[in-house]
Amino acid sequence: MKIINKTVRLLKRPVGFPEQDTWKISDEILPSLKDGEILIENNYISLDPAMRGWLNETRSYIEPVKIGDVMRAGSIGKIIESKNSKFSIGDIVSGGAGVQQYSINNGNGFFKINPGKLDLPVFIGTLGMPGMTAYFGILEVGKIKAGDTVLVSAAAGAVGSIVGQIAKIKGCKVVGIAGGKEKCDYVINELGFDGCVDYKNESVVRGIKRDCPNGVDVYFDNVGGDILDAALIFINQHARIVICGAISQYNETSAKGPNNYLSLLVNRGTMTGMVVFDYVKKYPIAVKEMSKWIEEGKLKSKEDVYDGIENFYEIFKKLFNGEKKGKLILKVK
Amino acid sequence: MKIINKTVRLLKRPVGFPEQDTWKISDEILPSLKDGEILIENNYISLDPAMRGWLNETRSYIEPVKIGDVMRAGSIGKIIESKNSKFSIGDIVSGGAGVQQYSINNGNGFFKINPGKLDLPVFIGTLGMPGMTAYFGILEVGKIKAGDTVLVSAAAGAVGSIVGQIAKIKGCKVVGIAGGKEKCDYVINELGFDGCVDYKNESVVRGIKRDCPNGVDVYFDNVGGDILDAALIFINQHARIVICGAISQYNETSAKGPNNYLSLLVNRGTMTGMVVFDYVKKYPIAVKEMSKWIEEGKLKSKEDVYDGIENFYEIFKKLFNGEKKGKLILKVK
Repeated sequence: MKIINKTVRLLKRPVGFPEQDTWKISDEILPSLKDGEILIENNYISLDPAMRGWLNETRSYIEPVKIGDVMRAGSIGKIIESKNSKFSIGDIVSGGAGVQQYSINNGNGFFKINPGKLDLPVFIGTLGMPGMTAYFGILEVGKIKAGDTVLVSAAAGAVGSIVGQIAKIKGCKVVGIAGGKEKCDYVINELGFDGCVDYKNESVVRGIKRDCPNGVDVYFDNVGGDILDAALIFINQHARIVICGAISQYNETSAKGPNNYLSLLVNRGTMTGMVVFDYVKKYPIAVKEMSKWIEEGKLKSKEDVYDGIENFYEIFKKLFNGEKKGKLILKVK
Repeated sequence: MKIINKTVRLLKRPVGFPEQDTWKISDEILPSLKDGEILIENNYISLDPAMRGWLNETRSYIEPVKIGDVMRAGSIGKIIESKNSKFSIGDIVSGGAGVQQYSINNGNGFFKINPGKLDLPVFIGTLGMPGMTAYFGILEVGKIKAGDTVLVSAAAGAVGSIVGQIAKIKGCKVVGIAGGKEKCDYVINELGFDGCVDYKNESVVRGIKRDCPNGVDVYFDNVGGDILDAALIFINQHARIVICGAISQYNETSAKGPNNYLSLLVNRGTMTGMVVFDYVKKYPIAVKEMSKWIEEGKLKSKEDVYDGIENFYEIFKKLFNGEKKGKLILKVK
């Protein structure tokens, strides 16, 4: 029985925002399994802003996706055939199977998930890469302590929403930055943040001043650009700035640095870059603690799930146009 | 007997580079001492790039100099009259007596110096604020270890020259950045750096690439601007960037941030601001260790001493036009 695998392969390297013809969708016939291989039916794949960086040819923390390769993506799926003694039919596995409906590989980099009562998308959201980024970023890089004022950009997003909730659990005052009234309401009323600056409808500088009258001890930056500059104005002595991403800059051909960076000098502040893959050995600790928080109702997990691999490009765009809330996920099979 | 005190007082706040009329030089008659006061004859004062920042009205790590006040400056001098039991006539004291020939004060913030065989200017250079900045900046903030490649801007300057020499003592490979062949020769041949990029006569990017083929582990930044951006291109994983100053930016009305700051993310780097006054309690440790290095001939102390308080403005300008080598000092009495 031949299986048809819909794949999304990289066709060319984009300049600026990727056009639809950056990728090509094809129907491919799957070959048979060799010894040691597994066949995964990919149920959900993760759509992340970092994908934009993987398209560039320049030096980064990970190899670029090669032209002609299946587009890289985190995934969760089910083993439907196995010639590898470590995996059995029916196992649920998480890994990086890419934007395709099926994946044949030797199992390296895939690990089994026991979902229990939780929905599968949670494991590529709150308990996947964005959740791990939030957990290690705010705890190990941000070094939050009770009483700190924590400011988080992209606060309604996959990472920011978890960062703020963890900071609340740890006894911090938490202020978000998000675009639009709906997102700000969500951040305050559903996620329990203490305040939210609406960058689409007010001055970010005035908003931070209003919501952080005692200054900012930790700023978790997902966006870069003018918002990072605004945050720098308000940092306290020995503040920690976590550079997690810079979504405002990913599609710019020339990036804009933080002109207010000398605030680091004046305030003896630290700005530190992080890459979640450095913490991979400690993921189980985070998954255990965060699962408990989810069960206890302290941590809300919000996934924004869309259907159909053929809609990849349209859904990918939602990463950058502000049209999403929580973790963006594509159901591919 | 009346003593005439020549003073340099702040007349107005400059915009951009200070003009001569930013300050006013006057002859003032000293009042008599009150109980608890000392009268210091100021022999040498320290000229530092940080002085430019102290002229601004905006929030910083220290209060701005007030309009009408004597210009703030580090100093070394001799007690010539004392009504304070802690000080005796003939004591040599270091502190912040300001740009004037004499100072009357209650002794707070002044400490006695035993110069031994060393010249007085050394105590406001290598063993003064610039030396302390270099010592704590490269050791405590830069966290250098043997084998690191250390890159230092303003390498022929008061701070940079000491930073590089300490890094050499600690077993690092050290590359400087300086302006002009004479300074680069000085940095390599007299201070013992392993290389020097001449920013006036070559591309800084190409120069760093040539002299740091294995990348940069610690970058000590005194200048900001394009040179900071060039250094960011070459940082290694977990690199430390020490933000000590930004002399290229101090006289700009709008500062330019490091556009390549996302290199911190890619390389998990850290950029940390420092202010030397935070380490004041540990100065004696540094003075002791550095005096030993000077005596052993491992650390060269170079002071660029000019004469005459009436030349304050002309000498101050040398801080910014590249016309100095080592610590800039004015002999005022």
